[in-house]
Amino acid sequence: MTKKQRHKRRKQYSLPKAGSSPGLVYIDPNALDPIINIYKYNADHFSVEELGDLKRVAEIIADKNYTYWIQIKGFGSIEMFETLNIDFNINKLILEDITRTYQRPKLEEYDDYVFAISRMLRIDDNNDLDNVQVSYILTDNALFSFQESHQDCLDPVITRLKAGKGNIRTAGSSYIMYALMDIIVDTYFEILQDWGEELDTIEDRLFEKPDKSVMYDTQMIKRNLIGIRRVVWPERDKLNDILRSDSPLISDQTKLFVKDAYDHCIQIIDIVESLKEISVSNIDMYLSVISNRMNEIMKVLTVISSIFIPLTFIAGIYGMNFAYEDPVTGKIMPKNMPELYQENGYLYIMLFMGAIAFAQILYFWRKGWFK
Amino acid sequence: MTKKQRHKRRKQYSLPKAGSSPGLVYIDPNALDPIINIYKYNADHFSVEELGDLKRVAEIIADKNYTYWIQIKGFGSIEMFETLNIDFNINKLILEDITRTYQRPKLEEYDDYVFAISRMLRIDDNNDLDNVQVSYILTDNALFSFQESHQDCLDPVITRLKAGKGNIRTAGSSYIMYALMDIIVDTYFEILQDWGEELDTIEDRLFEKPDKSVMYDTQMIKRNLIGIRRVVWPERDKLNDILRSDSPLISDQTKLFVKDAYDHCIQIIDIVESLKEISVSNIDMYLSVISNRMNEIMKVLTVISSIFIPLTFIAGIYGMNFAYEDPVTGKIMPKNMPELYQENGYLYIMLFMGAIAFAQILYFWRKGWFK
Amino acid sequence: MTKKQRHKRRKQYSLPKAGSSPGLVYIDPNALDPIINIYKYNADHFSVEELGDLKRVAEIIADKNYTYWIQIKGFGSIEMFETLNIDFNINKLILEDITRTYQRPKLEEYDDYVFAISRMLRIDDNNDLDNVQVSYILTDNALFSFQESHQDCLDPVITRLKAGKGNIRTAGSSYIMYALMDIIVDTYFEILQDWGEELDTIEDRLFEKPDKSVMYDTQMIKRNLIGIRRVVWPERDKLNDILRSDSPLISDQTKLFVKDAYDHCIQIIDIVESLKEISVSNIDMYLSVISNRMNEIMKVLTVISSIFIPLTFIAGIYGMNFAYEDPVTGKIMPKNMPELYQENGYLYIMLFMGAIAFAQILYFWRKGWFK
Amino acid sequence: MTKKQRHKRRKQYSLPKAGSSPGLVYIDPNALDPIINIYKYNADHFSVEELGDLKRVAEIIADKNYTYWIQIKGFGSIEMFETLNIDFNINKLILEDITRTYQRPKLEEYDDYVFAISRMLRIDDNNDLDNVQVSYILTDNALFSFQESHQDCLDPVITRLKAGKGNIRTAGSSYIMYALMDIIVDTYFEILQDWGEELDTIEDRLFEKPDKSVMYDTQMIKRNLIGIRRVVWPERDKLNDILRSDSPLISDQTKLFVKDAYDHCIQIIDIVESLKEISVSNIDMYLSVISNRMNEIMKVLTVISSIFIPLTFIAGIYGMNFAYEDPVTGKIMPKNMPELYQENGYLYIMLFMGAIAFAQILYFWRKGWFK
Amino acid sequence: MTKKQRHKRRKQYSLPKAGSSPGLVYIDPNALDPIINIYKYNADHFSVEELGDLKRVAEIIADKNYTYWIQIKGFGSIEMFETLNIDFNINKLILEDITRTYQRPKLEEYDDYVFAISRMLRIDDNNDLDNVQVSYILTDNALFSFQESHQDCLDPVITRLKAGKGNIRTAGSSYIMYALMDIIVDTYFEILQDWGEELDTIEDRLFEKPDKSVMYDTQMIKRNLIGIRRVVWPERDKLNDILRSDSPLISDQTKLFVKDAYDHCIQIIDIVESLKEISVSNIDMYLSVISNRMNEIMKVLTVISSIFIPLTFIAGIYGMNFAYEDPVTGKIMPKNMPELYQENGYLYIMLFMGAIAFAQILYFWRKGWFK
Repeated sequence: MTKKQRHKRRKQYSLPKAGSSPGLVYIDPNALDPIINIYKYNADHFSVEELGDLKRVAEIIADKNYTYWIQIKGFGSIEMFETLNIDFNINKLILEDITRTYQRPKLEEYDDYVFAISRMLRIDDNNDLDNVQVSYILTDNALFSFQESHQDCLDPVITRLKAGKGNIRTAGSSYIMYALMDIIVDTYFEILQDWGEELDTIEDRLFEKPDKSVMYDTQMIKRNLIGIRRVVWPERDKLNDILRSDSPLISDQTKLFVKDAYDHCIQIIDIVESLKEISVSNIDMYLSVISNRMNEIMKVLTVISSIFIPLTFIAGIYGMNFAYEDPVTGKIMPKNMPELYQENGYLYIMLFMGAIAFAQILYFWRKGWFK
Repeated sequence: MTKKQRHKRRKQYSLPKAGSSPGLVYIDPNALDPIINIYKYNADHFSVEELGDLKRVAEIIADKNYTYWIQIKGFGSIEMFETLNIDFNINKLILEDITRTYQRPKLEEYDDYVFAISRMLRIDDNNDLDNVQVSYILTDNALFSFQESHQDCLDPVITRLKAGKGNIRTAGSSYIMYALMDIIVDTYFEILQDWGEELDTIEDRLFEKPDKSVMYDTQMIKRNLIGIRRVVWPERDKLNDILRSDSPLISDQTKLFVKDAYDHCIQIIDIVESLKEISVSNIDMYLSVISNRMNEIMKVLTVISSIFIPLTFIAGIYGMNFAYEDPVTGKIMPKNMPELYQENGYLYIMLFMGAIAFAQILYFWRKGWFK
Repeated sequence: MTKKQRHKRRKQYSLPKAGSSPGLVYIDPNALDPIINIYKYNADHFSVEELGDLKRVAEIIADKNYTYWIQIKGFGSIEMFETLNIDFNINKLILEDITRTYQRPKLEEYDDYVFAISRMLRIDDNNDLDNVQVSYILTDNALFSFQESHQDCLDPVITRLKAGKGNIRTAGSSYIMYALMDIIVDTYFEILQDWGEELDTIEDRLFEKPDKSVMYDTQMIKRNLIGIRRVVWPERDKLNDILRSDSPLISDQTKLFVKDAYDHCIQIIDIVESLKEISVSNIDMYLSVISNRMNEIMKVLTVISSIFIPLTFIAGIYGMNFAYEDPVTGKIMPKNMPELYQENGYLYIMLFMGAIAFAQILYFWRKGWFK
Repeated sequence: MTKKQRHKRRKQYSLPKAGSSPGLVYIDPNALDPIINIYKYNADHFSVEELGDLKRVAEIIADKNYTYWIQIKGFGSIEMFETLNIDFNINKLILEDITRTYQRPKLEEYDDYVFAISRMLRIDDNNDLDNVQVSYILTDNALFSFQESHQDCLDPVITRLKAGKGNIRTAGSSYIMYALMDIIVDTYFEILQDWGEELDTIEDRLFEKPDKSVMYDTQMIKRNLIGIRRVVWPERDKLNDILRSDSPLISDQTKLFVKDAYDHCIQIIDIVESLKEISVSNIDMYLSVISNRMNEIMKVLTVISSIFIPLTFIAGIYGMNFAYEDPVTGKIMPKNMPELYQENGYLYIMLFMGAIAFAQILYFWRKGWFK
Repeated sequence: MTKKQRHKRRKQYSLPKAGSSPGLVYIDPNALDPIINIYKYNADHFSVEELGDLKRVAEIIADKNYTYWIQIKGFGSIEMFETLNIDFNINKLILEDITRTYQRPKLEEYDDYVFAISRMLRIDDNNDLDNVQVSYILTDNALFSFQESHQDCLDPVITRLKAGKGNIRTAGSSYIMYALMDIIVDTYFEILQDWGEELDTIEDRLFEKPDKSVMYDTQMIKRNLIGIRRVVWPERDKLNDILRSDSPLISDQTKLFVKDAYDHCIQIIDIVESLKEISVSNIDMYLSVISNRMNEIMKVLTVISSIFIPLTFIAGIYGMNFAYEDPVTGKIMPKNMPELYQENGYLYIMLFMGAIAFAQILYFWRKGWFK
C-alpha cells in the first residue's frame, strides 16, 4: 500500500464539525456541477433528456402515464436542493444526508416519499477501494438518484431500460430503485471475488515462497474486509426494511426481487466472514512459517557450532606452547605434552576429532535435525 | 493441497455479473445434457421411465393416483426450463436460482409449489471437497429434483423406493424431498467423521512426530470447516422453515421426519464448532511444539558453546608467543609466561579446564537443561 | 493421553450410514443381552422383579395403585423393541433414537408418553471419559429407562427408592425421571470438580516446574471441556423444556425439583466456561514461560560468548607467527610484534583482557541480565 | 499467589454428592454455632435482641407495628432450620439452598415469602478473595438474613438503622433487603477499583521494569475477573427480577432504589469487561516486551560474534605453522606464508582487521542495531 | 503515556463508599462554586442573565411565553440542590446521580420532568482524555443542564441560540437538550477521527520504521477505545429511549432530530469496532515484524558463524605443534603433519578454505537467506 492510498483511506473518518446546526444543506466548494438526466419510459416508450436544473421536473412528472428516473450526478448547486425542498417538500435533514456522503445504508419512509441510501464500492484505476454514496428519493411514479461524482457505474440499468427486456419498463419506479441497489450489491460480489482470489494467491505464496509481503497483503485485505462489513450489515438491514415496508410506494412485485438481493446480501456477509477467517488463518500460518524458519536457521547455527567449536578447542590445546625445559640439557622434554611427540600423534588426534564430529552428526541426525 | 485443489476452491466465489438482468435463465455453454428420469409409484406400484424432455410430464402427473419424482441431472437445455416456466408456471427467478448453482440452502413457499435448495458435499476421488447444489420443486403429487452433474449420489433413495419398505411409498411427494435432504445431511456427518479422524491423526502426529505438515493439514481442515459452516447454518434454517411451514404441500407426517433431520443438523453444527476448536487447539499445540523445539536447539548450542568457548580461550592464551628475550643471553626467559615452563603445567591446565567444564555441566544440570 | 484413549474418543463421531431408512430399529450384533428390572412401589410398598422380556409389562403396570420403573440395560433383543412398538405404541423413530446412542439430550412430548434423552458422563477406570446415553419413556404411572451397557451408575436412585425417604415413593413416575436426570447432572459437577483441581495442579506446576506436559494436559482438559459443553447446553434446553411443558405426565411437584436441576445446569455451564478461560490462561502462561526460558538460555549464551570470543581473538593475535627475519643477521626482529617481546607483556595483556571482561560483566549486570 | 491461596480457590468447586436426596437440610459438622440478632424498629423505635434460637420469633413478629430484621450468622443448629420449616412454612429445597453455600444469586417468589441469594465478595486479611453467600427470606414485615460465618460485613446497615436517617426505618422489610444487597454490590465496586489500580501498577511496571511477575499478576487478576463475572451476571438478573416482580412483598419505593443498584450492576459488568480487555492488553504487551528483549539479546550476541569470529579466523591463519623447509639449506623459506615475513606485516594485518571491524560496525549501525 | 496520565485514568474507577446511604446529596469539598446562567428566548427574543443561586428560577420560568435554558457549571453549593429538591420537586436519588459524576448515560422519565445523563469526551491540553458528565433535567418549558467544571464546551449551542437560525428558538426545551446531546455525540466523531489518523500514522511507521513505540501507542489507543465504548453503547440506548419515549415533554419534532443523532451513534459504534480491529491488526503486524527482525538478526549470526567457525578450526589444526622428534637425528620429521611442510601447502589450504566459504555462501544464497 502506498502512502497515497493510506491517506485516501483516512478520508472515511471525515465527519461533521461539532456544534454545527443540523438540517442545513452544506455544499462543498469543490463539489462538481450537477449533471441531471431524466429518463421517461413506459412499456412502449423510452426517452432521455438532459436538464440544466430541477425546476421543470415537477411539471414533467405530473404526467402519470410514464415512470421517471431522475439521475443526478454532482452536488454543486444549492438551488437544486432548494427546489427539492420547496417543489417536492423533501425534509432538510434528508437533503443533509444526501450531501454529507458518509451515511450508513438506511431506509426512511415518509408520507409522500421513501428515502434510501446505498454505498457503492468500486476498486478504481489505482487499485484503491472507492466507497461512494448513492441516495434515492422514491415517489409514486419517479425515482431521484443522487451521487457525488460523475462516475457511470449505474449505466447498466440505463442499458437495460433502453433494451426494455424483463420487467424493468413496466414494474414502476420502485423497481428502478431495486435495480440500482441490485447492481451495487453485485459489485460487492465482484470485489469479494477479487479478494478471495488474492487470498488464494497469498496462500499459494505461503506454501511456496512466504515472505514479509504475505503479512502486509493479508492485513490489507483484512482491513478492507473490516471496511466492507461496515457497509454490508446496514445494507442488509435496509433491504430487510424494504421487504417489511408497508409503504404503498414499494410494490409487491419489487419486493419479490428485493428478496433476491437480500439473499445475496446474506451470502455476501457469509463470504466476508469466511474471508476474514481465512485471513486470520493465513496470518497464523505465516507466523508459524516464520517460527519454523527460525528453527531452521538455528539448527544450521547449532549443528555447525556444536561440531566445530569443540574441535577448535582440541586444536587449540595442541597449539599451546607448554614446554618443560630440562634445566640440565636445555632440551624440550616430551613428557610435558607427550601427545605432541607421539609417533602418529597427529593422525590419532585427527581420527579422534573425526570420531567426535561423527558422533555429533549421528546425534543430530537421530534427533531429526537433517529432516 | 495441490495447486489444482486450490484453484478448484476458487470457483466457489464465482458469482453473477453485476448489472445483468435477474430472472433470465442463463445456460452455461458447457452444461451437460439433461438426463430426466421419472419415478412413478404408490403403495403397490413402482416404475421408472427415462424422458427426453419435460413436455409430457404435465400430462403424466395429472394422474393423481400416483406420486412422482422427476429427477433432472444436467442443465444443458434451455427448452426444459421454458417448459417448467410455461407448463408448471414456475417463476423465472426460481429457474435462475436453479441454474446459478451458488445459492444458499433456502425454502420458498408459493401458492402452487414449494421451492427448496440443498447443498450436497462430497469428497471426490481426488480428495477434493465437492459442493453441489440440489434444488427441489415440490407440487402436490410430484417432486422435481435438479442437479448440475450426472452424479448418482441420490441413488440410495431410488433403492429404497424400489424396495418399498418404510413410509417411502405411501407418504407422498414431500417425503421424497425429505428423504433426499436427509441423505444430504447424512453425508455431512460422514465428511465430518473423516475430518474428525484426520484431526485425531494429526494430534497423534503432534504427540509423536510433529512437523510442518501438521500446520498445513490442520489449516486445510479449518478452511473446509469454515466452508461447511456456510452450508450447514442455512440448511438448519431451511429445515426449521419446513417444520414451521403451513403449506398444505408438506404433510405433518413428513414434518415428523424433518424434525429428525433438523436434530441431526444441530448436531452437525455442534460437531463443526467442536472440530474448529480442536483445530485451533492443534495449532496452538503445534506452535508450542515449535517453541519448545527452538528451546531444545538453543540449549544444545548454549551448553556446547558455553563450555568450549571459555576453554578455547584458555588454550588460546597458552598458544601465545610471549617471550622476553634476555638482551644479554638471547635466551627466552620463563618469567614472561611462567606457567608454560612449569613442570606438569600442561597437566595442571588440563585439570583446570576439566574443572571449569565440570562446573558448567553441573550448573546446566541443576537448571534442568538436560531434561 | 494414550493412543487407546485417542482411538476411543473417535467413536463419538460414529454416525448413521447415509441413505439408510430412518425409523428402522437397528441392533448392533455386539449388543449386550438386556437385563430388565421392574421396580414396583408406592408409599407403603417396594419390590423388584427381574424380567426376561417386556411381554408381561403391559399387564403388570395396568395396576394403577403402584408406580413402576422399568430399567433396561443392554439392547441385544430386537423383540424387546418390537414389544415396545406394539404393546406401548412407541414410534419407531423414537426406538431408533434409543438404539443409536449418539443423540443430543432432548425432550419430545407425545399424546400418551414423553420421550427424553440424557447423556451420562463418567470417568472410567482407565481415566477415560465415558459418554453414555440414557433414554426415558415416561407414561402416566411408569418410567422406562434405557442404557446400552450394564453399568450400575443409576443405583443410588434404587437405594433411595428402597429407603423410601423423601418424596421419591409418592411423587409419581415423573419424579423418578427427575431423580435419574439429577444424578446425571450431579456427575457433571464431579467431573468438573476433578478437572478444576487438575487445572489447579497444572497451574501449580506452571509456577514451580513447567514442562511440555503442562501444554498437553491443559489441551486434553480443554478438549474434554469442548466435549462436555456439547452435552450440557442441550441438557439445559431439555430441562427448560420440562419446566415449560404442559404435558399432564409431568407433575408440578416434579417441576419444582427440575427447577433445581436446571439451576445446577446453569452453574455447570458457568463452570465449564470459566474452566475453559482458565485453560486458555494456562496456555498463555505456558507460552510466556517458554519465551522467558528462551530468553534465559540466550542470555547465558550471549554473556559467555560476548566475553570470551573477543578475548580469544586477542589471544589469537599473540599466537600469530609474524616475524621479520633480518636479512642480514637472520635473527627475528622484535619490532614486528613488539608487544610480544616487552618485559611483562604477558602480564599487561592478561590485565587488559581482565579489564575487557570486567567491563562487559558490568555492562550486562547494569542491563539486569543477571536477574 | 501462594499455594494456600490456590488451595483455597479450589473450594469453589465443592459441590453436592451425586445421588443424594435433594431438599434434606445438611449441616456441616464444622458449622459455627448460630448468632441470632433480631432488630425491631419503626420510625420512632429501634431495639436489638440476641436470641438463642428462632422459637420465639414467630410470636415476636406477629406485632405488625414494627419491622423486623432477623440476622442469622452460622448454621450449626439443625433445630433452627426445622423451626423455619415448621413455624414459617419454608420449603425444604430453600433451606437446602441456604446451607449449601455455592448457589448463584437468584430470586424466587412464593405465596407467603420471597427467597433471594446474594454473593458477597471480600478481600480478606491474607489478600484472598472471599466469596460468601448471603441468603434472604422476606415476609411482609420481616427479613431473615443468613450467612455462614460470623463476619460483620453487613454492619453498616445496622449503623444506618440505629441512626434512623433516610428511608431505612420507614420503608419496610423489603428496603432492608435492598440495603443489604446494595452494600454487597458496592463491595464489588471496591474490589474492582483495587484490581483496576493493580492493573495500572502492572502497566507502570510494563513500561519501566517488566519481569515475569507481570504475567503472573495479570493472570491472577484475569482469573479473579472470571470469578467475579460468574457472580455479577446472575446478580444483575436477580435485581432485574426484583424490578419486574409483582410480589406485594416488594414495595414500589424499594424498587426505585433497586433500580439504582441495578444500574450499578450494569456498570460493574462494564468495568469487569473493560478490565478483562486491559488484562489481555497487558499480556500482549508483555509478550511483545519479551520478544523485544530477545531481539536485544540476540543483537548483542550477533554484533560481537560477527565482528570477532572473522577476526579470530584471520589471527588463526597467521598462527599456522606452514613452513617449507628448504631441502638443501634446511632453512624455513618465507615464500610459504610470505605475509608473515613482510616488514610491517603485523601492522598491516592489524589495520586490515580494524578495517573489517569498522565496516561491520558501520553495517550494523546503518541497520539501526545500535538503536 | 506519562505517569500523570496513568494516574489520571485511575480516577474513573472512583466509586461510592460501600454502606453509605443512597439519595443523600454529597458535595465534594473541592467542588467549584456554581456559575448559573439562564437563557430566556422565544422566536423573537433572546436574553442571558447570570444568577447567584436558583431561588428566583421557579418564579422566572413561570412565564410560559418563553423557553428557558438554565446552565449550571460547578456543584459547590448544597443550597442549590436543596432548592431543586424543594422548589422543583426533584428526587434526591437524581440529585445524587448529578453530583456523583461516574454515571452511565441514561434516561429516566418522571411525571413532571425527564432526567438524562450524557458523557462528554474531550482531549484536553495535555493530550489526556477527559470524560465529563453532563446531566439534564427537562421540564415543559425549561432545561437545566449540569456540569462539574467551568468548561465552555457547550458554547456552540449558545452561539446558535443567539443567531436564532434554524429550529433552535422555536422548537421548545427538548430541542435544546437534543442540541446539547448532539454536540456531545459529534465530539465523539472528532476524537475517533483523531485516533483513526493516529492509527494510520502508526501503520505508516509499521511499514517504514517499526519500533517499540508502535506497540505502546497502539495499546494506548486500544485502551481508549475500550473506554469510549463504555460510553457510546449506553449513549445509544439512551437516544433510543428518547425515540421511544411517550413523555409529552419530548416533542415529535425533537425526536426527528434525535433519530439523526441516534444514526450517528450507531456509526460511532461501527467506527469504534473497526478501529479496535485495526488496532489488533497493527499489534499482530508488529509482532510479525519483531519475529522477522529476529530472523534477520539470526541469519547474520548464522551466516558469519557457519562460515568462519569451521575455517577457524582448520586454521587451528595447522597451528598445532605436533612434531615427531626423530630420536636419532633430533630433527622434526615432516611425516607427522606433512601438509605443513608441503611446498605451496599454505596456498592450497587457503584455496581449500576459500572453497568451503564459497560453498557455504552458495548454500545460504540458494536458501534465500540473502533475500
